[in-house]
Amino acid sequence: MPSINNPNEATGSADSIFNKFKEHSISEFFKKNKQMLGYSGLAHSMVTIVHEYVTNSLDACEEAGILPDITVVIKEAGDSKYEILVEDNGPGIPKKYIGKALATILAGTKFNSYKQQRGQQGIGAAGCTLFSSITTGKPIHIQSTTLNESYECDLSINTLDNTPIISNMHDTEPKHTGLTVAGIFGEVKYENGDRGVYEYLKRTALVNPHCQITFIDPKLERYIFTRSVNAIPKRPKEVKPHPLGLSINDIIEFSQVSQEKKISTFLQNSFTRISPKKIEELKKICDIDFDKPPSEINWDDAEKLINSFKKIDWIAPDASSLNILGESQIRATISNILNPEHISVVERKPKVFYGGIPFIIESAIAIGGNAGKKMEENDYTSNIMRFANKVPLLFDAGSCAITEAVKKVSWKRYNIDLEKQPISIMVNMSSIYIPYSGVGKESIQQDQSIVNEIKFTLMDCAREMHHYLKNKEMDKIEMSKYKSIMKYVDHLSSDLSFITDMDKNMIKEKLSKLIESHYIKGKGKEDDASGEQVS
Amino acid sequence: MPSINNPNEATGSADSIFNKFKEHSISEFFKKNKQMLGYSGLAHSMVTIVHEYVTNSLDACEEAGILPDITVVIKEAGDSKYEILVEDNGPGIPKKYIGKALATILAGTKFNSYKQQRGQQGIGAAGCTLFSSITTGKPIHIQSTTLNESYECDLSINTLDNTPIISNMHDTEPKHTGLTVAGIFGEVKYENGDRGVYEYLKRTALVNPHCQITFIDPKLERYIFTRSVNAIPKRPKEVKPHPLGLSINDIIEFSQVSQEKKISTFLQNSFTRISPKKIEELKKICDIDFDKPPSEINWDDAEKLINSFKKIDWIAPDASSLNILGESQIRATISNILNPEHISVVERKPKVFYGGIPFIIESAIAIGGNAGKKMEENDYTSNIMRFANKVPLLFDAGSCAITEAVKKVSWKRYNIDLEKQPISIMVNMSSIYIPYSGVGKESIQQDQSIVNEIKFTLMDCAREMHHYLKNKEMDKIEMSKYKSIMKYVDHLSSDLSFITDMDKNMIKEKLSKLIESHYIKGKGKEDDASGEQVS
Repeated sequence: MPSINNPNEATGSADSIFNKFKEHSISEFFKKNKQMLGYSGLAHSMVTIVHEYVTNSLDACEEAGILPDITVVIKEAGDSKYEILVEDNGPGIPKKYIGKALATILAGTKFNSYKQQRGQQGIGAAGCTLFSSITTGKPIHIQSTTLNESYECDLSINTLDNTPIISNMHDTEPKHTGLTVAGIFGEVKYENGDRGVYEYLKRTALVNPHCQITFIDPKLERYIFTRSVNAIPKRPKEVKPHPLGLSINDIIEFSQVSQEKKISTFLQNSFTRISPKKIEELKKICDIDFDKPPSEINWDDAEKLINSFKKIDWIAPDASSLNILGESQIRATISNILNPEHISVVERKPKVFYGGIPFIIESAIAIGGNAGKKMEENDYTSNIMRFANKVPLLFDAGSCAITEAVKKVSWKRYNIDLEKQPISIMVNMSSIYIPYSGVGKESIQQDQSIVNEIKFTLMDCAREMHHYLKNKEMDKIEMSKYKSIMKYVDHLSSDLSFITDMDKNMIKEKLSKLIESHYIKGKGKEDDASGEQVS
Repeated sequence: MPSINNPNEATGSADSIFNKFKEHSISEFFKKNKQMLGYSGLAHSMVTIVHEYVTNSLDACEEAGILPDITVVIKEAGDSKYEILVEDNGPGIPKKYIGKALATILAGTKFNSYKQQRGQQGIGAAGCTLFSSITTGKPIHIQSTTLNESYECDLSINTLDNTPIISNMHDTEPKHTGLTVAGIFGEVKYENGDRGVYEYLKRTALVNPHCQITFIDPKLERYIFTRSVNAIPKRPKEVKPHPLGLSINDIIEFSQVSQEKKISTFLQNSFTRISPKKIEELKKICDIDFDKPPSEINWDDAEKLINSFKKIDWIAPDASSLNILGESQIRATISNILNPEHISVVERKPKVFYGGIPFIIESAIAIGGNAGKKMEENDYTSNIMRFANKVPLLFDAGSCAITEAVKKVSWKRYNIDLEKQPISIMVNMSSIYIPYSGVGKESIQQDQSIVNEIKFTLMDCAREMHHYLKNKEMDKIEMSKYKSIMKYVDHLSSDLSFITDMDKNMIKEKLSKLIESHYIKGKGKEDDASGEQVS
C-alpha cells in the first residue's frame, strides 16, 4: 500500500520517524520486489511461470505415483499479455487447500520436508497468482479433480495480509484426476532461443523421460516431447536428518515436538544413524542426562550434543533416497540435445554439505556435434547446462555454484580450451534440499563443499575426455602413417617381385598384412572409441 | 518446525498428500534459507551483520539530520563465535517499536517509502536477530535512547509467527540519543582482505565522508575513519511517483487510499508532473470519467490511464532528491583507496528504469597506483568497486548489473585491456528504489535500462581515459625525440661556432630554444594532464 508522507513534516526525533512504522506481508514484499522471484524481463517472466507450474505438476505426479502427462498452452492476449495454461494428470488439489496452495505465499506441503522434490519453498505457484494480479488485475482460473471432488474456481491474493481470495467456486463433472491452471499474465513475452519456454520444456522432458509434455506455442505449433520410459517414478522417500547435518537450533526444535520420554530414544528416533551403540559412545563424551525428557533440552545441552556428534565416526548419510539421472539417462539426454562426437559422464558418490545434508553431483562433458556455441570460425564459447533435482536452471548463471566450479577447473591441463573447442558441460545436483541463492531458485549457492564436488566431478570428466582426445590424435597420426606407407605397397611389390622372382600379388598381400599389423592396434582403438559414442 | 512423516504411510491421493499442508512464517523461511539473506559462508555472514547495522545507523542519522558517529566492535567469543556491537548517535528507536523494528521480518519505516535510503526492505536487522538466535540461541541486546526515553532490553524472534520476544526490559539513565545493538553470533569468522569488515567499513567511510566510524577489531586494534565533511547531510526527500513509473496495479492501490473527490485531482496530487494542462491532454485521449471519485477506478480505467500516460510527453521525473556522490567525492574516494596515476570520472544525467523510476549512475576508471589486482608481472585483473546508494556491494558480483555492463563495453576500442593494465572501475547507482536481485541486497538486477546506462557511463569514462593514455604516449615520444636531439646541441654548437666564428654559448642557447619550441606543446600537455591527477 503506498504511503506518501508530507515532505514538509517536522524531522529529527525518533518518534516522528517511527510514525511511519508499518508491518508488511510477504506478498506485499514480493509485489514490490518481483524480480527476486524470477520476474525480471518479459521473456524471463514467461519462463518463470511455466517453470513454477510444470515443476509443481511433476512433483505432484511423482508423489502420487502417476506417470505425468502435462500440457502447456501459451496464447497471445494483447500487448505484452499472454494466456498461459498448464494441465496435468496429477492427483489434483482438494478444495479445502486450493486457496492456500495457489494463493498464499509460504504455504504448501514441501517446506521442511526431508525428501527430494523439485519445489521446496511454497512460494512459486502463489507467486504466479500474485504476478497475474499485479500485471493484469485478473485472477487465476483453476480446475481440479481429486478422487473425491471436482470443481472450478478463480483465485487471487489479498496482498495486504497474504490471504487467498476465492471466487466463482462451483462443482464440475469429474473426469480423470488432475489440475489445470490458466491465467492471463502481463509484462511477459514469448521468445525462442536458449532461455525460452520451448528450450525449458525440452530440457525438462529430456531429464524426466517418464514424463510426456505437450506444448502448444502462440503460433499454434504443437510439440510433443514423448515419454520414453514407462516406469512409474520412484516416490520420493522421506529421510531423517543426519547428526552431522544438524544445527543446535535443529536439536531444540526437534526436541520440542518429540513425544519420546528420554533424550536417548528421542535421538534414535528423530535422526538417522543413531543406534543404541552410538548412544553409549555419546554418553561417554557428552555430559548431559540422556534419561531426561527431550523437552528439557536447553541450548547448552544441544550445543554439547552437536559438539559430541562431531567427535564420533558416523556412517555417511543415507543417499539411497536421492533420485539421480544416471549415466545412461545423461548420455541419452546429451545425445538428444547435442548429438556430439564424444561424451564423458561421471557420477560421484554422495557427499554432504552444511555438515550433513547428502547430495550427489553428476556431470558430463560433450565435444563436437552441436556442443558449444559457435561464435566465429574456430571460436566457441562453452555452453553450460545446469540442473537441480532434474529442473533446468536457465537464469542467474553468474551466482551459481556450477558456473563457479567450471571456472575453477584448470582446463588447460586436460588440453581442453573452452573458448576454442565445441564443448558443452552438463551438471545435475540432487539433494533433499538444494541451497538456492535466491527465492527465484535459479542458481545454487556457492557453498565450498558443493563447488568443490562439482569441480572434482568435472575434473574426472575432463580426464576421460583428455584420454579420448589424445587417443584420437594418436589414431589420426598412425592412420596417416599407414596410408602413406600403403601408397608404396603396390610399387614395392612389383620391385620385389622382379628381384626375387616371386608372385607380385602374394608379396603385396603379405606386405599389406605386415603393415596393417603395425597399425591394427590403433585401428582397434578407434573402433573402441567409436563404441563409446552414443547413437 | 520439523515434521517427519511416517515413510510407510499410504500414498497416491490428493488428500493423503495435503495432510502435510502447512503455512510458514517468513522467519521460518529465512531460517531455512539464510543464505538468501547473505548468510553464506563464515566471513560473508560476518560482513552481512555489520552491513545491516551500519546501513541502518546511517539511514537513521540522515533521517534525523545528525552527523553520524558509529562505533563497531568485534570480539571473539568462542569457536566460530563473535560478539558484534554497533553503536550510533542516531535518534534511537522508541520502546513501543523496538520489537517490531529489530525482531520482526518485514516491518519498518522504509518499505514503500519514495525516498532514497540505504535500507528499503525491513528485513536486514531482524535477519541479524534471527541469525544470532539460530546460531547461538542468544537474544540481541539493545540499548536505545530517544529524546523521550532511555532503556535496555533483549530481543529475539519467535519464528513460528514472526513476532518479537522482548525480555529484561528496563529503563536506563539517559545519555545522548542513539542505538547500541550487541549480539553473539555463531557461524561467522573475522577475515581481512577485499571482502572483509575492515574493507567494508573503509569503503563505507569513503563514500560517506560526513560519517565518523571507529572500528575495534578482534585483536583490539583501533581504526578511526575520520569525518572529512562537517555538513549535516541532506535529509532524504520523499518524492511522488512519475506517471511513466506506474503499473496499473499502482493506480488501483493509490486510488483506494486517496481522499480526493475526483480522478483529475487524485492524479495531480498523487503523482509528479501531472498538471491541470496534462489532465486536459489526458481527457482528450483517455475515455474515462475524470470527475468520478478515485475509489471507482477499476482495472480497465487504470489500464486506460496507463496506456494514455505512454502517449503523452512528460517532463522527466524529478531527480533532485537523489543524493549522489559527486565528482569531487569520487576523485577523493578513489585517490584515497588506490592513489592512481589518473582517474576519469563521469556522472550522467538522471535516467529512468521500469518506465519511470529515476536513477543516476556515476562511474570512474582509475589507472596506475594500486588500481587493478596484480596477478603476475604485467598481468592484472580489473577490480570493480560496486556501490548502491553509497553502500559498498562486496558479494554476488556475478548477478550484478554493474558486472554485466563492464562485460559489455568494448574495451579494446579504447586501447584498454582489463587483463593487462592496472585498472580499477567504480560505479555507484543512486535511486529511491534499487532493484536488488536478491533479498540479501548484494547485487543490482540486470535490467536492460540500468545495464545500458552503466555501460554508457563507462564508455564515457573509457573515452576520456583513452585520450589521456594517447596524450601520455605522444608526450613520451616527443620527449624522447627532444632528449635525443638535445644530446647533439653541444656538439653542433661547437661546430657551428667554428664555421661561423660566432659565440658558441649564444648558438647553443638559440638552438636549445628552437628545439624546445618544437616540443613545448607536448610539454605543456603533460603539465595539463598532471593537473588532472588528484594529489
